[in-house]
Amino acid sequence: MSHYHLACNKCALEHPPSMETLACISCGAPLDVRYVASAEIGGTGRIPAMPFHTESPSMTLGEGDTPVVPLEAVGRSLGLYNPMAKLEYLNPTGSFKDRGTAAMMSVAKEFGIEAIAEDSSGNAGASVAAYAAKAGIEAHIFAPASAPQAKMQQIGVYGAHTHAIDGPREAATDAAMAYCREQGLVYASHNLSPFFLEGTKTFAYEVARQMGDALPDHIVVPVGNGSLFIGAWKGFQELIAAGALDRAPKMHAIQAEAVMPIAAAFAGRGWTPRAGTATIAGGIAVGAPPRKRQVLDVLQASGGVSVAVSEPSIESWHATMAQSEGIYCEPTSAAAFAGLELLLGAGHVAPNDRVLVAVTGFGLKDAPPTSSG
Amino acid sequence: MSHYHLACNKCALEHPPSMETLACISCGAPLDVRYVASAEIGGTGRIPAMPFHTESPSMTLGEGDTPVVPLEAVGRSLGLYNPMAKLEYLNPTGSFKDRGTAAMMSVAKEFGIEAIAEDSSGNAGASVAAYAAKAGIEAHIFAPASAPQAKMQQIGVYGAHTHAIDGPREAATDAAMAYCREQGLVYASHNLSPFFLEGTKTFAYEVARQMGDALPDHIVVPVGNGSLFIGAWKGFQELIAAGALDRAPKMHAIQAEAVMPIAAAFAGRGWTPRAGTATIAGGIAVGAPPRKRQVLDVLQASGGVSVAVSEPSIESWHATMAQSEGIYCEPTSAAAFAGLELLLGAGHVAPNDRVLVAVTGFGLKDAPPTSSG
Repeated sequence: MSHYHLACNKCALEHPPSMETLACISCGAPLDVRYVASAEIGGTGRIPAMPFHTESPSMTLGEGDTPVVPLEAVGRSLGLYNPMAKLEYLNPTGSFKDRGTAAMMSVAKEFGIEAIAEDSSGNAGASVAAYAAKAGIEAHIFAPASAPQAKMQQIGVYGAHTHAIDGPREAATDAAMAYCREQGLVYASHNLSPFFLEGTKTFAYEVARQMGDALPDHIVVPVGNGSLFIGAWKGFQELIAAGALDRAPKMHAIQAEAVMPIAAAFAGRGWTPRAGTATIAGGIAVGAPPRKRQVLDVLQASGGVSVAVSEPSIESWHATMAQSEGIYCEPTSAAAFAGLELLLGAGHVAPNDRVLVAVTGFGLKDAPPTSSG
Repeated sequence: MSHYHLACNKCALEHPPSMETLACISCGAPLDVRYVASAEIGGTGRIPAMPFHTESPSMTLGEGDTPVVPLEAVGRSLGLYNPMAKLEYLNPTGSFKDRGTAAMMSVAKEFGIEAIAEDSSGNAGASVAAYAAKAGIEAHIFAPASAPQAKMQQIGVYGAHTHAIDGPREAATDAAMAYCREQGLVYASHNLSPFFLEGTKTFAYEVARQMGDALPDHIVVPVGNGSLFIGAWKGFQELIAAGALDRAPKMHAIQAEAVMPIAAAFAGRGWTPRAGTATIAGGIAVGAPPRKRQVLDVLQASGGVSVAVSEPSIESWHATMAQSEGIYCEPTSAAAFAGLELLLGAGHVAPNDRVLVAVTGFGLKDAPPTSSG
């Protein structure tokens, strides 16, 4: 018997460990990893339980342990005492996705998987391609034909097979799933895989270790599919269960006004993918996130809020972060700072609260023409 | 009295601490930082002495503490037992230069410097621009008009003033120095500044801490100006002086055949910058490195060798590293692996020796058209 099973996060039905099962066979909701004995969840509260059988991911490219740095200029500009950033862009392929991919591909390697497919127009595709190269697993990455050239080039450099699919973003998902059925490949979806979330929960363990008694009151995250958001919350809950923490930060989910299914749902407003417009924050342009309900659950449980930010505010913060903090992030990450500004204005964050912002992706990967100073 | 002075590394003449003094006033050779009391050199051998007055660099963007990862595919391919890489590309602006810049700009901030100029066609320019943004110091970066567009764009994003200079690489140096004289700016040269080397020596402290009893027998570094090479050696010497290490690794300096002043000098052959040809390893294309004599001294003192590698071997290793290890490095970093292959072939490295390769820069910054798989 394995030390975990896959549990439906809606109806709680249990499923045996597998790379193939990506949704509940009863109700269709996404699955989470549940460990069988709670004692196995990190004896000391320092080391997270993981769905593989080595102490650390066997397929590692050096992900995690990203720096936490103070943001003096942001603090002065917003009238906020000592805000901090966790530089997730300093992961091996330039984004936080590497945390999730390291766990997912380590599991794939244990299962003896030889070939996978994934759909992504950006960071997840590059991350899966890199770890697949490390693992010696054949990777097929499906992306919209309109995806940014620099990101597709990075995916290709790792030796993955890229498939450009005409039509909307969803067409790439459909094509990847069809290809998996036809070719008998595993669909290694960063949005659906429960193993991916196990990897992103390491974010919380690091925050607890790096910040200690100065644990943030608020963590601000740009949210598309929400894998970092949900994973980090799971990590904090594990740390509390293990007695290593007595509280968790409020988790705030920032979206672009252009694509805001979660911010709209949080505000009790309707929103459909057809309402989506173009945004420079490509990493959070997800019209129908499959784990939306889980994101809303985390917002409620943590006491956080979700807000949506305008394109000009994203552009402005993108330039400000580079020119006043020396942090060259993706526009997607800049959206988090635009969101922080709104949270302060609305009183959700007070000037003396401790704030940590997740800077999720490297600007080198996604430089808009407007960003050049 | 300060806790250090600047000492000529050729005639040993002492100079008072200053950002303006970049060469010995007697013999013109470059300067090094020398601490006044040896007791101040890291009491425990764990924390390096530094030319500023805070425990860590005040101008930090989260540099250093880069991961060390095993290279299984490289080991299999070369018949080498367990080679390792230190991923210097996971520094805040995507290259090892951030170690040197953090120290240099922290000193600049203490001296109250308000504006600097620097000449660089790539990584150093981006690094100086980012830390200058953090420090609130005005930066002017001079680069050849032919410099890669992506690197110049990154420099501009940080809000630095870029100056494109027609003519050879040396013309940008001359223009930067002339601008400093005219405008009364500090010439913050990563090649000449003794403070820059104090930053790069942290590489050695981390290797000693991360690898412990498995300290490498060999460290393989791509060398242009040699700031990482010289700095790392200085770090190892400090650790030995403090009793924290009893030996240092052999330091090997890899160059491209296209621009090989150090490899030629090591082999006792003549070479002039006029002999230089084009190379995809732009980070080590330095025809007349001002600290060449110091690099040769480190080679001799450590028992290392310098070899030059061909363009096809750099291209081939660039693709191999991405496709078999999931490491997307700059061509400059790939040259180090091409060099390692030569060192093994020539018997300078034995199959069971412990080898660490410095992966100095991120491939995203400098992707040649040939690299796409």
